[in-house]
Amino acid sequence: MSNDTTATILRVSSKSNPASVAGAITGVIRERGRCEAQGIGAGAVNQIVKAIAIARGYVAPNGIELVAIPAFLDLDLPEGERTAIRFAIERR
Amino acid sequence: MSNDTTATILRVSSKSNPASVAGAITGVIRERGRCEAQGIGAGAVNQIVKAIAIARGYVAPNGIELVAIPAFLDLDLPEGERTAIRFAIERR
Repeated sequence: MSNDTTATILRVSSKSNPASVAGAITGVIRERGRCEAQGIGAGAVNQIVKAIAIARGYVAPNGIELVAIPAFLDLDLPEGERTAIRFAIERR
Repeated sequence: MSNDTTATILRVSSKSNPASVAGAITGVIRERGRCEAQGIGAGAVNQIVKAIAIARGYVAPNGIELVAIPAFLDLDLPEGERTAIRFAIERR
């Protein structure tokens, strides 16, 4: 997972730790109100979804309800074109 | 994918077709305003996420914006305990 500080996009892989990603999501949400996370492949998408479920629990005591908005994103990478999933994570 | 008509939970597997699941989500949303989808494992979760992204496009022309709310769900199945992900899919 790397954190692009200009756009605050969390890049998540199948090896990312969901609780760690959840912590990062929570920090960005508290600071900026919204967050984006993206991953390529089922393993990465699954880790993002688990992280969002965990992050919902982290912020719920503060009266914040997080929702996720998934979209397809075509990436032109050195290894070829890849379709990623990007999640916007926002307060409801 | 099977459709539990009492609770309208779409059960999605890694082999489910995302466009078909998206069509089912769209139908339930239009009829009931909300929908639930659940799956076990990264492949199934990934198909659900793709289906939600597609369904967002299906209903957007009607001024409906869908959001997803993922949660963990412990299932006691004949093959043992499994942790599923259940998505509530709702109008924003």
